[in-house]
Amino acid sequence: MPEISKRSANAYDSPIRKLTPFAVQAEEAGKKVYYLNIGQPDIETPQAALDVVRQADLKILKYAPSQGNRSYREELVHYYKRFGYHVSPNDILVTNGASEAILFLLMACLDVGEEVIMPEPLYANYLGFAEVAYVGVKPLTSTIDTAFDLPDLIEFERAITKKTRAILICNPNNPTGRVYSEEKLRAIATLAKKHDLYLFVDEVYSEFCYDEDFFSVLNIEGLGDHVAVIDSISKRFSACGARIGSIICRNPKVIQAVMKFAQFRLSAPTMAQLFAEALLKLDDSYIKSVKEEYQRRRNTLFQRLSKMDEVVCYQPGGAFYVFAQLPIDNSDRFCRWLLEEFDYKGATLMLASGSGFYASENLGQQEVRLAYVLNEMDIHKAMDVLEQALLVYPGRTKVLKTVFST
Amino acid sequence: MPEISKRSANAYDSPIRKLTPFAVQAEEAGKKVYYLNIGQPDIETPQAALDVVRQADLKILKYAPSQGNRSYREELVHYYKRFGYHVSPNDILVTNGASEAILFLLMACLDVGEEVIMPEPLYANYLGFAEVAYVGVKPLTSTIDTAFDLPDLIEFERAITKKTRAILICNPNNPTGRVYSEEKLRAIATLAKKHDLYLFVDEVYSEFCYDEDFFSVLNIEGLGDHVAVIDSISKRFSACGARIGSIICRNPKVIQAVMKFAQFRLSAPTMAQLFAEALLKLDDSYIKSVKEEYQRRRNTLFQRLSKMDEVVCYQPGGAFYVFAQLPIDNSDRFCRWLLEEFDYKGATLMLASGSGFYASENLGQQEVRLAYVLNEMDIHKAMDVLEQALLVYPGRTKVLKTVFST
Repeated sequence: MPEISKRSANAYDSPIRKLTPFAVQAEEAGKKVYYLNIGQPDIETPQAALDVVRQADLKILKYAPSQGNRSYREELVHYYKRFGYHVSPNDILVTNGASEAILFLLMACLDVGEEVIMPEPLYANYLGFAEVAYVGVKPLTSTIDTAFDLPDLIEFERAITKKTRAILICNPNNPTGRVYSEEKLRAIATLAKKHDLYLFVDEVYSEFCYDEDFFSVLNIEGLGDHVAVIDSISKRFSACGARIGSIICRNPKVIQAVMKFAQFRLSAPTMAQLFAEALLKLDDSYIKSVKEEYQRRRNTLFQRLSKMDEVVCYQPGGAFYVFAQLPIDNSDRFCRWLLEEFDYKGATLMLASGSGFYASENLGQQEVRLAYVLNEMDIHKAMDVLEQALLVYPGRTKVLKTVFST
Repeated sequence: MPEISKRSANAYDSPIRKLTPFAVQAEEAGKKVYYLNIGQPDIETPQAALDVVRQADLKILKYAPSQGNRSYREELVHYYKRFGYHVSPNDILVTNGASEAILFLLMACLDVGEEVIMPEPLYANYLGFAEVAYVGVKPLTSTIDTAFDLPDLIEFERAITKKTRAILICNPNNPTGRVYSEEKLRAIATLAKKHDLYLFVDEVYSEFCYDEDFFSVLNIEGLGDHVAVIDSISKRFSACGARIGSIICRNPKVIQAVMKFAQFRLSAPTMAQLFAEALLKLDDSYIKSVKEEYQRRRNTLFQRLSKMDEVVCYQPGGAFYVFAQLPIDNSDRFCRWLLEEFDYKGATLMLASGSGFYASENLGQQEVRLAYVLNEMDIHKAMDVLEQALLVYPGRTKVLKTVFST
């Protein structure tokens, strides 16, 4: 029998999806499972935009252009004005979700063996895309005692070597929910320019900033050649299944380079592009109400966690995640134990283990990511489960750090 | 300004899409352009399947499972029985078009620097996927004087080195339209097993065999660990824009390895999977009538080409392409000249230059791929244009080979 490749044998396992078989078993055993592991919102997708697809006269479901439908890119130009910046349709390339956008940027801008600096904890699949693109990841650890703010500039400076070609950050951050300040972002951008690096910013949660305005790096002048933004409709319109993302970059060489990879895969899905265009034509009321809903959930989740003994967390300003430290020995073991061995009144919960969100070894052992993608009542019930679970978990351990600031 | 990567600078340009800017200019100059360059059928997509999407109660457009919707995979199991073989839903993984299926198989089964043997002319984007996966391509040239049959077994044997991990073939073939015999396929399969290689077969045109029955390699017994088939709904249902493909493989290790890459990109589009499932529930009448239509077009195109002076071609048994040899100096130059400098009664045509379908240097200079994706009347008009063009093309040259069999 031929062997599978070493790269697939060694490839990263998604911390978000790898426990799914145990969740399936828990459900088969009759348990109610609260899913806080995955960024799949329970909020209804805008039906008016789906109606546009339903009513579309699709005689032939043709390939879209490799760069994406022109009319959709034009709508995006209009939409992005809400974040204060202007780009042209030529500065945009439509991708199969933000996932493909990240992979394409890594391949277009970095050669094999070159490196990208990423603050961690990080969106776990970044590590997978780096593996596929064969580029190195240099992680810079942000910590819960600074509420997961960006590492100091001096740490970025120190991490830069002659192999470094890019910095990738996620703002608002997945998995921490941290929103970075304009001041910090400008400083990182200046650093990128100084060292002639690309700055990739994943802004898929841009609409979900609860305590302050969102600042896009595309507002920073004089950085057009260096900055590329990754975006997606998945979270803001509760449309993860559409698989429509985008790259926004004012450097035409980058767009041309990405286009080569985009042409290999022909196009992003056609119906979903029609749908995405319709979404952008809706008025603001949908996004406004969704944001208010998430804000309430954030408050609820944070309050519940804050009251639990030896649970450390801070109030995240954006996205829909809390990254919390728990009094546990090992987050992988704890998350699996929840599904396999625990229930409270017939219910349990699925969390994403913190260790999977670090590129560095042995970090995140006491951390978990909680996605507040359930309604407030379910969040309360899920927190009842967690509270009880922490009382009886056999691997309960003191938290290793207890410094707590915001 | 930071440089783009060398790999993107060196990446393959699609021969199918690279002349698009010249076609746009031709249209802007008022010319009618007949598009025979791209495999985008003009045939209507089954409306009954689109109606299923239109009527679907999609409250939340959620991520699909990374392996693909279970219900769609179950329909595929049923569908594939028409080709004589049985697989389970676990043997199938749903991809973003056949494109992603090929890339995933290369990454799951080959390590960087290992090699895959491919007969050429080949589907040009295979070369792009090999670049992305960082694997070497060893081309084996098939020639028009054997009507592009598979190279002899001895040539495959000779091409195998210790780096070789797989053979990739496309049957029915894009770009040649050749359908390979069961005997040849069994011989290649036996060879693959003998040398413990994977055999990847792209069967996206399986429904379009006009002169004999299609034989899938999944019918060969004892090869479950070695064989993986690449499939797609794009061509058979005129649904290129859905972006739904699949990998079918009875080796669970391969499916597990592919799953890792599939999890990074989360899922294939959700609406399109509903649509694809609905397609498979239709009765046979659609595919039957489409096949008859293509067969008529094939006959028309072949007859017209056969009558042209010094044009060499053979009657292809499948897919919807003819790969013809023309009395021209350089196919890139000729295809561009058609768009930029020629018209006949206000019309011209876009072809895919033959050179782009070879991994070997300097081959295909006198060849072009013609996709019969236009109705018969338009094929006639396009052939009128080609006939006139060949009479006046400044680079007209004698064909280099004139041996013609089949």
